[in-house]
Amino acid sequence: MKNKLGIVGGGQLGRMLTFEAKKLGFYVAVLDPTPKSPAGQVADEQIVAGFKDEKAIKKLAKQSDFLTFEIELAGADILEEISEQGVMVNPSARSLNIIKDKLVQKQFLRKHHIPSADFAEVSYKGDLLEIAEDYGFPLVLKARFDAYDGRGNVLIKTKKDIDYGLQKLIGRKLYVEKFVPFKKELAVMVARNTKGQIEVYPVVETVHENNICHTVFAPARVNSYTAKKAEKLAKDVMTHLKGAGVFGIEMFLTRDNRVLINEIAPRVHNSGHYSLEACVTNQFEQHIRAVTGLPLGNTDLIVPAAVMINVLGQRTGAVEVYGMEKALAIPGVSVHIYGKKDTKIERKMGHITAIGKSIDMAWKKARSARRYISI
Amino acid sequence: MKNKLGIVGGGQLGRMLTFEAKKLGFYVAVLDPTPKSPAGQVADEQIVAGFKDEKAIKKLAKQSDFLTFEIELAGADILEEISEQGVMVNPSARSLNIIKDKLVQKQFLRKHHIPSADFAEVSYKGDLLEIAEDYGFPLVLKARFDAYDGRGNVLIKTKKDIDYGLQKLIGRKLYVEKFVPFKKELAVMVARNTKGQIEVYPVVETVHENNICHTVFAPARVNSYTAKKAEKLAKDVMTHLKGAGVFGIEMFLTRDNRVLINEIAPRVHNSGHYSLEACVTNQFEQHIRAVTGLPLGNTDLIVPAAVMINVLGQRTGAVEVYGMEKALAIPGVSVHIYGKKDTKIERKMGHITAIGKSIDMAWKKARSARRYISI
Repeated sequence: MKNKLGIVGGGQLGRMLTFEAKKLGFYVAVLDPTPKSPAGQVADEQIVAGFKDEKAIKKLAKQSDFLTFEIELAGADILEEISEQGVMVNPSARSLNIIKDKLVQKQFLRKHHIPSADFAEVSYKGDLLEIAEDYGFPLVLKARFDAYDGRGNVLIKTKKDIDYGLQKLIGRKLYVEKFVPFKKELAVMVARNTKGQIEVYPVVETVHENNICHTVFAPARVNSYTAKKAEKLAKDVMTHLKGAGVFGIEMFLTRDNRVLINEIAPRVHNSGHYSLEACVTNQFEQHIRAVTGLPLGNTDLIVPAAVMINVLGQRTGAVEVYGMEKALAIPGVSVHIYGKKDTKIERKMGHITAIGKSIDMAWKKARSARRYISI
Repeated sequence: MKNKLGIVGGGQLGRMLTFEAKKLGFYVAVLDPTPKSPAGQVADEQIVAGFKDEKAIKKLAKQSDFLTFEIELAGADILEEISEQGVMVNPSARSLNIIKDKLVQKQFLRKHHIPSADFAEVSYKGDLLEIAEDYGFPLVLKARFDAYDGRGNVLIKTKKDIDYGLQKLIGRKLYVEKFVPFKKELAVMVARNTKGQIEVYPVVETVHENNICHTVFAPARVNSYTAKKAEKLAKDVMTHLKGAGVFGIEMFLTRDNRVLINEIAPRVHNSGHYSLEACVTNQFEQHIRAVTGLPLGNTDLIVPAAVMINVLGQRTGAVEVYGMEKALAIPGVSVHIYGKKDTKIERKMGHITAIGKSIDMAWKKARSARRYISI
């Protein structure tokens, strides 16, 4: 019986993946540089090593039947090597190669006629000036690699911002996108298992603060035409991308009611945390099913509405959680604490999900709970 | 911040308690004689020791802010001692003393006018003959201590069975109950936290096979009058019992529509596993909240119906799980595997919960899934 799962990355995503993998009877080993990492605390075993430590990743792969990631830092070469040795690796090197380089990701979308913002490669300042003349302002200058939670994006409102932007992202490979004037940001989690089965979650609405996903409303407050369009786009992406796993597809609903793909995350995603309380099969169990070749579960909502709010660190130092008593006294509120040892300003320390009869009721509960909690 | 939880017992109940405690940010240590026990696999730490090893229990208590149990084997003396040292122990020695001795449990119910079957203490054969004359047959001869999953009960249909019963339970302290002709067995999970807040789960219907809880139907197929009566009885029990934690109250619905308490379990219970998928707050999170002084969560069903079926071992030897692919292909089916290393005939190895629009639909799914799985 194949039941050994390796996870590269021991943060909160790895932790929630581990809970579900254990529930399904898997033996779980995680790789993370921090001893007793959030996932390491609940896994059978942790290998303490860096995310790019090839020797350690190979060791983890050797003892695993299935290997997966909560972060996209592992090199594609090593994944291909491991895959050739008979360990099932997902997301695959092929998917990661398309997604990791955001320029390649945009080219992939364009190739398959999946709508997204206009973009162009930027090699030096002259490119940017030329593109600005063509697209007009504002533009978003973006790092092609290792950019997440907004680290790696600069908004270029006028010609004067160009030097600042290039300076800020100096030393990184860049591309530029036409800024999309949007009404809402949407997200759709979608899963594809190793056998090609695809399941799409309901479209949700995300609100970012300082470029970090802050609040998620499920389902999104959009008309059914827009919802269907968003869900179809997510499915289109997976049809072309092929790899197995859960993927988070972030989208813009533009002022003129078009739905554009913003970005693809090749993993379970903050915008899918609501599914733990709100869906028949949560995104973490779904990912485990997807990468181990099990059938995907049903993705329907089992509650009328859910609102998720992140709990970000509010100071620097050892973790102390305040306000649990008051937050948990609100009916329908769940609090997830990630078990990190130290808190930092804006670090993801936990999240709150409230379920309710309507988005407004759930939102009210989640906001109250959020006000009580401090870490 | 008090966040260290100790759990005596590392089986499946301890495992599911650990998942929820970790989610809420607790540090969890479990005590169990089997290394890498089901709970030990997911806890921060396991102390490998017997359930009656006082030194080990004291060690666990010393490092914990809160201590709780998944089994009722620890001595009451030691609990009182630990409690006096400032560790919050729940269920309390007082509750356990009432529940552990089933004769005392029956006396407790009688004292508080909570309806249950007639009973009497049995010291020798003469008592039984006398009671038989008074109550008539059938009777159930029961061991007062350490009787669970039917180990410790003998049905006495006629005078001829008396010698067999006494022989079978030789060396144990005994009492006898009048047999209750019942239409259904019911169960209600109820929680009381350290501050006296009480929350009652919906009444469910349980079906036993060979004295082991086999199938649970949530909600129970009874009229609303009976449901209210059962839920009120469960609340009455907790009002008088006082201790904190989740308790499983097993009941009979008699042929003449009375609801009688059968037995109280001072812990999360097999008949409450359905709550993981079907209730706003599952029984395991509720127990953690209850024993750590947090407010209790809402107990409402979030799905129309759920059916839970136990997965018992079908052979003896190392665990191999078969049929997951087929079982998980059924929409709305969740499979929980407990991570035990060895399987045995009738050993609890996992459980299946199916949710559905009606009990019949959920039952059909659960039955199909159960047929596929074999351990």
